[in-house]
Amino acid sequence: MGAHGRAARSCPAGRKAKELISSARESLARMVGGRPEDIIFTSGGTEANNMVIHAARRHFHESQARPGDSRGTPHVVTSSVEHDSICLPLEQLVKESLVEATFVPVSPRSGQAEVDDVLAAIRPTTCLVSIMLANNETGVIMPVPELSQRIHALNQRRRAEGLPRILVHTDAAQMIGKGRVDVQELGVDYLTIVGHKFYGPRIGALYVHGPGTTTPLHPMLFGGGQERSFRPGTENTPMIAGLGQAAELVSKNWEAYEAHMRDVRDYLEARLEVSRPACRIWGLEPEWICSHFTGSKRLCNTSNFSILGPGLQGRRVLSCCKMLLASVGAACHSEKGDRPSSILLSCGIPYDVAQNALRLSVGRDTTRADVDLVVQDLVQAVAQLDRDQASQTP
Amino acid sequence: MGAHGRAARSCPAGRKAKELISSARESLARMVGGRPEDIIFTSGGTEANNMVIHAARRHFHESQARPGDSRGTPHVVTSSVEHDSICLPLEQLVKESLVEATFVPVSPRSGQAEVDDVLAAIRPTTCLVSIMLANNETGVIMPVPELSQRIHALNQRRRAEGLPRILVHTDAAQMIGKGRVDVQELGVDYLTIVGHKFYGPRIGALYVHGPGTTTPLHPMLFGGGQERSFRPGTENTPMIAGLGQAAELVSKNWEAYEAHMRDVRDYLEARLEVSRPACRIWGLEPEWICSHFTGSKRLCNTSNFSILGPGLQGRRVLSCCKMLLASVGAACHSEKGDRPSSILLSCGIPYDVAQNALRLSVGRDTTRADVDLVVQDLVQAVAQLDRDQASQTP
Repeated sequence: MGAHGRAARSCPAGRKAKELISSARESLARMVGGRPEDIIFTSGGTEANNMVIHAARRHFHESQARPGDSRGTPHVVTSSVEHDSICLPLEQLVKESLVEATFVPVSPRSGQAEVDDVLAAIRPTTCLVSIMLANNETGVIMPVPELSQRIHALNQRRRAEGLPRILVHTDAAQMIGKGRVDVQELGVDYLTIVGHKFYGPRIGALYVHGPGTTTPLHPMLFGGGQERSFRPGTENTPMIAGLGQAAELVSKNWEAYEAHMRDVRDYLEARLEVSRPACRIWGLEPEWICSHFTGSKRLCNTSNFSILGPGLQGRRVLSCCKMLLASVGAACHSEKGDRPSSILLSCGIPYDVAQNALRLSVGRDTTRADVDLVVQDLVQAVAQLDRDQASQTP
Repeated sequence: MGAHGRAARSCPAGRKAKELISSARESLARMVGGRPEDIIFTSGGTEANNMVIHAARRHFHESQARPGDSRGTPHVVTSSVEHDSICLPLEQLVKESLVEATFVPVSPRSGQAEVDDVLAAIRPTTCLVSIMLANNETGVIMPVPELSQRIHALNQRRRAEGLPRILVHTDAAQMIGKGRVDVQELGVDYLTIVGHKFYGPRIGALYVHGPGTTTPLHPMLFGGGQERSFRPGTENTPMIAGLGQAAELVSKNWEAYEAHMRDVRDYLEARLEVSRPACRIWGLEPEWICSHFTGSKRLCNTSNFSILGPGLQGRRVLSCCKMLLASVGAACHSEKGDRPSSILLSCGIPYDVAQNALRLSVGRDTTRADVDLVVQDLVQAVAQLDRDQASQTP
């Protein structure tokens, strides 16, 4: 039976839930080097990213130099390789003429959004720069700390000129649990946290440096006042508690996780290298690109490579693998059709290379033995396709 | 190890997740009498309610008789006793002059938003009528089916006059699992579903009669295209699966749940009646209001009563209870201060009665034995307060 009333606060169940949520908040803060009050729980990364764009836009309009001033349309700078939850809300707002946006192309040499290119895109009306911490497909890590530093310096001058402050956001979905993530070092105003990317539940959080005080934040939803009304709605207490646990593991073990994944990933790429001769096709088309952008810092867990050669599209190779998907449990994305990844193309990777791209990511539990199986599997798949091709060509 | 690529669709893990989600979608559709394609999963009721207001507003502007026409500001009719996730987004939009809103007071006799009162509030610019299916505090059930019928008839005439269509929404959070909920009978365009209100997980869903076709729906978030882009973001697959299971239980058993809860709730109110003489205070102040609005159809599980008498505020009585909160596990709301419920006041309940109001709700597992304990507990609490009072008054 439930009793609802003014004594609510004092009931054991209510207190317990409050405690779970606040300790999870502390765990997330610890994980990213922020304060508990800087953490806003959300339904996931998509909501967190949409919230940042919403907040920056509102702030632009509400922070007019003088009331009544119109600074025109707020401008946002982002990269050409962001997640859909950044680029699609921007495209929507552009369509409605509510925002202007610049999608800075990444360098075809480094795969990075170069600091100078991002800064060059800034306008007097720029209110937000949002650059992901690492790209999920190429694994390339973006120069966010330097970017923030430069923008903070720029903001000093802009304040003097009465220009709007440029807020800095990074989507850390891919980096958390795979490398150091510290909001002080990164120097960002907002940082997106996505639970299921670090073995946590399928919710997320937004780090905001002093929400509503140092850094503007405007709710997208209105309701019961939870999360200090920045994100109302009955708290997903069990998943918030789980997110806290996942964050604790990351805080304690991220260096070990990173070392392990990097070791296994590097072993994978080394094995791929030496496995070349194993199939005839290299006779015709020897190139096996084990990783794009080897010059750049990369996520420890991601390998994106292309097996060049006719009829060796990533899709075909994967579908000829006997064990890969089944035995080692793939984390899947349902992508449509046969087109190569638009992300790889916008990184300047040639069409045929992008079309043959395969992305493998290792996890906390992946072993070198798993790698041996997978490489063997890939090699036989390529040999298979090679034979089929040979038999088809007269 | 994870493989990401064009073969994704075909991987076992991906297929399994798709199946879980689509079978949960079928279960929710079955539960409310809609079609699977009418169900959009959301983070909860707050998001679902905010989405409806957003969609109606967008539709009002996009459905101008002729492009360029301006019909002015969209108008929304709701009741004075809705959940914060309806009234606060409306208040926010009113503050921004983006929406006009009428909060129709409920009848002090019935506790209902009367159909004629709601219809009288409709204007040429009205784009949405949102009336909850049942109020969580009074338990009063609103006349939604008759309201929808009248509005559909009105929409015929409005179409002829080139006036915007009035969309009809009901928040069914309180009713699902406690009574019949059938979108055909209710005749609504939108219906809000909240998992934790029917023993499901802490997410929700929005029923939309033909989303994007028969009934307008505009996303509030943009991202990865999940939920046909109406609500993107990595699906909360485990909780969606759990929501489906909870819905199956409701579809199969709601009549049994209702009968049981009604029996125990009625037993509670009968016991409260006869327990009066047990404490002296009735000598001074005999009134014990066992339920407001007994004339109206009420939720089967809710009892909202007031023990009249000086110093018998609900808060004080509850805090003198020895077992109620602790032993029978209260579902708590942390509400602030000592003020009586604004909902009860806006139902026309006198201040002193509202201040002494106590709301008890029974669940699927509550027994008559639990009720006996609770009533005993309440009676001793009142006697206690009675003695304290006596000892204080010289």
